[in-house]
Amino acid sequence: MGIGDDAAVIAPGRDRLVWTVDVCIENVHFDRRFLSLADVGFRSLNSAASDLAAMGAQPLAALSSLVVPPRIAKRELRELGQGQAEASRQLKCPVVGGNISRGSELGVTTTVLGEVPRPIRRSGGRPGDDLWLVGDVGLARAGLLILSQGPRMQPTRHAAAAQERCVEAWRRPQALISRGRALRDRAHAGIDVSDGLSGDAQHLSEASGVRVVIEKPRLARALSDELSRVAELLGQDALTLALEGGEDYALLATGPRAKRPRWVRTIGRVEAGEGAVLEEPGRAARKLRGGFDHLAG
Amino acid sequence: MGIGDDAAVIAPGRDRLVWTVDVCIENVHFDRRFLSLADVGFRSLNSAASDLAAMGAQPLAALSSLVVPPRIAKRELRELGQGQAEASRQLKCPVVGGNISRGSELGVTTTVLGEVPRPIRRSGGRPGDDLWLVGDVGLARAGLLILSQGPRMQPTRHAAAAQERCVEAWRRPQALISRGRALRDRAHAGIDVSDGLSGDAQHLSEASGVRVVIEKPRLARALSDELSRVAELLGQDALTLALEGGEDYALLATGPRAKRPRWVRTIGRVEAGEGAVLEEPGRAARKLRGGFDHLAG
Repeated sequence: MGIGDDAAVIAPGRDRLVWTVDVCIENVHFDRRFLSLADVGFRSLNSAASDLAAMGAQPLAALSSLVVPPRIAKRELRELGQGQAEASRQLKCPVVGGNISRGSELGVTTTVLGEVPRPIRRSGGRPGDDLWLVGDVGLARAGLLILSQGPRMQPTRHAAAAQERCVEAWRRPQALISRGRALRDRAHAGIDVSDGLSGDAQHLSEASGVRVVIEKPRLARALSDELSRVAELLGQDALTLALEGGEDYALLATGPRAKRPRWVRTIGRVEAGEGAVLEEPGRAARKLRGGFDHLAG
Repeated sequence: MGIGDDAAVIAPGRDRLVWTVDVCIENVHFDRRFLSLADVGFRSLNSAASDLAAMGAQPLAALSSLVVPPRIAKRELRELGQGQAEASRQLKCPVVGGNISRGSELGVTTTVLGEVPRPIRRSGGRPGDDLWLVGDVGLARAGLLILSQGPRMQPTRHAAAAQERCVEAWRRPQALISRGRALRDRAHAGIDVSDGLSGDAQHLSEASGVRVVIEKPRLARALSDELSRVAELLGQDALTLALEGGEDYALLATGPRAKRPRWVRTIGRVEAGEGAVLEEPGRAARKLRGGFDHLAG
């Protein structure tokens, strides 16, 4: 452990503890052709912290466990640590320990402990709730596609800026900690959109035992201009990127209309029933496809 | 997470929290020729819990994060889970969540949270303390050597039992939680012997800013009969196995003679100064060599 003991020591407050662990492995969760090691460090901490954001929790501290292939130089490890340190400062979440060992694949495991008086759970959604989106979806996947495929035509200056925004969304996702905290007394249920809106809407539906309806016109209005611009350059559908792209670490929550914060976008509603569907005026509601499954790949 | 939320939720007591993370990777930390996946699961939880034992803490809960190569069958994953579950029952430490992802190397990352009123630290050793050993050292390494090399001669019935004990010590190490708790009001400092007595005596010496003296005759008397028997069969020196073998998850502690519990064996003393040495009557004290370093291999 960094602090020179077998385990890190933390003085708890009186709130509930929330606790998560996240693994990022090279060529499974990230590709070093498109990410610096500083990005890898930054992402890994934000990815873990995002689970806490979804529950309305404030991070207390993190432990980081690295697996390092022999080809990685000490300078590169320092870069990774710098990315973690940057995320740690932004999230106000000190990395209080961890360890390092050799392996053949680069891996960063991050466990984060946080606290919250009453956690927002996936299971709290109720019929009658609105479905709220906090933050942007689809940008990260669009950013990854730009990096891996390149755009199909020469971008204009506006489009170039939109591309940069998408690449940044993929390289440097930000866990929405303060937004999550602000949802504490407003939302009935919450989840972070790590697997794509489609998959995470289903997770919320299953945990709450409700039907989650995403209204296509409202979702379309909630998408950022940058996403539309970049989707066009890529020859992709913006809505599909929003529904099936992952790793944006936006938040999906449900709550009563009267408690809606001004910074959420309502993209649908919660009904009695089951499953997650996409509803379009004049057409039958379409069942949403499964989320990204790391074991399926 | 197993409980169907983004993060596990825990109600803390009023004690300090202690928190550790441990990574076990195939062909780095274990070799599947010599371990079943149930053993891998059992060991990974005990290895993490041992850090808490050293600090006198009681485990509260664990999260487990698996990386699984495509060649592993579902049945094998169940075996791994059964080994974890067995350890979890013995340690009274429920596994409250985790995740699973694909990778090319089998990896088990375990993070354990525990609590203790006042943690026993590595840094508390004082000149005048005795050096205490809790549990056996050397057996696990002897067990691994038996599995990887085989004994050099046909064992007697007694020797066969001793071999089994060593193999079991390597396959099924047990974190000494209740011993660690019982040291709380007695020991000044503690560490778990995961890297070998020699290396961990040095860690304790560095953290406490003291000289740690292992007295060879006392250490020799503290070694188990099984270790001596198996060392002979293997053509190895029992003392070297005890000093340099790791993964026994014994505890090394320091404390005042008056507070010595009857179940510790005094193997040396703490003095003003620095470093860890092996002292033998009539010879100059020998500086102990470094512990097992996963990055050196």
